[in-house]
Amino acid sequence: MDFKIGVLAGDGIGPEIVEQAIKVMDAVASKYGHTFNYTEALVGAIAIDKTGNPYPDETHQVCLDSDAVLFGAIGDPKYDNNPAAKVRPEQGLLGMRKKLGLYANIRPVATFPSLIDKSPLRKDIVQDVDLVVIRELTGGIYFGARGRSEDQTEAFDTCYYTTEEVERILELAYVYAGKRNKKVTVVDKANVLASSRLWREVAQRIEKTHTDIETDYMLVDNAAMQLIQWPKKFDVMVTENMFGDILSDEASVITGSMGLLPSASIGRETSVFEPIHGSYPQAAGKDIANPLATVLSAAMLLESLDLLEEAQAVKDVVNKSIEEGYVTVDIAGEATSYKTSEVGDWLAKNI
Amino acid sequence: MDFKIGVLAGDGIGPEIVEQAIKVMDAVASKYGHTFNYTEALVGAIAIDKTGNPYPDETHQVCLDSDAVLFGAIGDPKYDNNPAAKVRPEQGLLGMRKKLGLYANIRPVATFPSLIDKSPLRKDIVQDVDLVVIRELTGGIYFGARGRSEDQTEAFDTCYYTTEEVERILELAYVYAGKRNKKVTVVDKANVLASSRLWREVAQRIEKTHTDIETDYMLVDNAAMQLIQWPKKFDVMVTENMFGDILSDEASVITGSMGLLPSASIGRETSVFEPIHGSYPQAAGKDIANPLATVLSAAMLLESLDLLEEAQAVKDVVNKSIEEGYVTVDIAGEATSYKTSEVGDWLAKNI
Ligand SMILES: CC(C)[C@H](C(=O)O)[C@@H](O)C(=O)O
Ligand SMILES: CC(C)[C@H](C(=O)O)[C@@H](O)C(=O)O
Repeated sequence: MDFKIGVLAGDGIGPEIVEQAIKVMDAVASKYGHTFNYTEALVGAIAIDKTGNPYPDETHQVCLDSDAVLFGAIGDPKYDNNPAAKVRPEQGLLGMRKKLGLYANIRPVATFPSLIDKSPLRKDIVQDVDLVVIRELTGGIYFGARGRSEDQTEAFDTCYYTTEEVERILELAYVYAGKRNKKVTVVDKANVLASSRLWREVAQRIEKTHTDIETDYMLVDNAAMQLIQWPKKFDVMVTENMFGDILSDEASVITGSMGLLPSASIGRETSVFEPIHGSYPQAAGKDIANPLATVLSAAMLLESLDLLEEAQAVKDVVNKSIEEGYVTVDIAGEATSYKTSEVGDWLAKNI
Repeated sequence: MDFKIGVLAGDGIGPEIVEQAIKVMDAVASKYGHTFNYTEALVGAIAIDKTGNPYPDETHQVCLDSDAVLFGAIGDPKYDNNPAAKVRPEQGLLGMRKKLGLYANIRPVATFPSLIDKSPLRKDIVQDVDLVVIRELTGGIYFGARGRSEDQTEAFDTCYYTTEEVERILELAYVYAGKRNKKVTVVDKANVLASSRLWREVAQRIEKTHTDIETDYMLVDNAAMQLIQWPKKFDVMVTENMFGDILSDEASVITGSMGLLPSASIGRETSVFEPIHGSYPQAAGKDIANPLATVLSAAMLLESLDLLEEAQAVKDVVNKSIEEGYVTVDIAGEATSYKTSEVGDWLAKNI
């Protein structure tokens, strides 16, 4: 089959890790008889530098025209710690989410047995962790009205949700739970927030239509604790945008395999697949960055195209590279390590 | 000296743990020649049951008339998971914070060497952790305008901050850092929120007036990760109300000594001291609850009255009880354990 893939490599290590994922996808294509037609487009700091816009219209068009989008990473130190800067790479990201309607961010977090010693948590706690955080991505306080008083001494942001937004993401959570361990944990702050009470009411209604799935409710402060104390007890955690930003990042460090975690942002027309780590500017161009999270994001991309066997082949080869120690220095530690490009070549060859 | 102490024991294990703290304070009083005049008042579910109001006016008056307030815990299962209930214990808590102007919640988190194995984190990560989370407590999304559309399908909450609110809490953070390890980490989401940009601007200004203290800025999602990965690197973390709710709870589990953590909520006129754990209804009345967090909250209370030597004596006797294993079952594990009341008696005797 033929597929159109948008490629938004972005900043820092973005281009070099995306390059490896494409090698792997090409290997998949030739093995399984598909064609991936890639179209590159600008995003992030590099897009600001070249066009003045972190998410240019042409890039948006490329995404719309694609069956799926592979995304690297964005962010550049020159825009950091400068909240007052007029144009910032993050605005590109938020604009992309909104314009493409990427309403759900999916982050699977599972322990890699051979990397368990890298976890900051005790082995018995992190063993067999296998959860997914589903974060609402186009609503809440990220996109509500905000502003400053005229004299600049007051500021406000608005967290706003509609019933449909909540229904849509909860239904998605039940789809994932149905394919996994049949448990949904709805995280909110219903003892304080009106928007959370809306979430909870909608969830209590939708729960009744999914009697095969266990539904739990948890306050966000409690969830922040339980993720560390008993991460194993979660299957699918679903929550609103800001809580999801915090909890999905918290969840991402518990297994110690940050450099391995992929994500999918699901949209109505197309979806975007990207590693959860950042653009790691210090490592850019050095051929040392770990490409595995991007390669696993490509696996999620293949799943979204219903290429399930192909996706499994990619996951298998990544596992193999970890087991055989054919990995970059961040994972290898004192052992022999390989360059970003070498890992990509190895994966492609072993597909 | 004579002091007036408000005593709000609350629900669940509240009364029995507060009783032990009072034994210890009485021992301090007789040893150091002070008088503590206690006035009890209702709060929480028990206050709803008896008066229909979780924070009755008489209770507020008791607090206003006190030099400091000792607080137990609130919450009752019959009000849980019922976001629609008209009156809830939490409203009492939020009302108290607002009416007493308790603008800062202070939560020290330090590792107890002998309890390090209880931490969910690896020993090398949690060893020597010593940090304080300072949470703004009377502003932000907790107290901004909120509501529902007439047809109930939309809901919103408002996060609102003024320059003065931000200044006040940041100045307090620098006071704490000055007495500690001279480092303040300001946590916000300045890459998205207008209120966070106000926080950051104010902080960047105030930072310049405290050149003896190192100031760091961290986005909340990053802070949620770093707390687990490198908790040692924090000294004083300061943040707005909602982020503080999440991060202070997250911080509270990293040392594995949840049952030992005290807190102070600082007000203009009086301050409130309470354990960070909940009302633990399953244990109520069984004389098994761990009173140490409440006793350590009493130590913070003594500090607020400038009884520094007395406060240190309380902290010392708590450490002694832990080292000698004179503790409740949650800490003792398989070893011999003692009843709540026995621990209180022992502490009072050994002051
Ligand atoms: C860069 C920032 C705006 C973004 C967010 O907060 O959503 C990032 O933290 C993320 O999680 O993708
Ligand atoms: C009970 C609830 C309203 C409260 C809060 O969110 O502030 C609690 O979680 C706390 O941290 O004291």
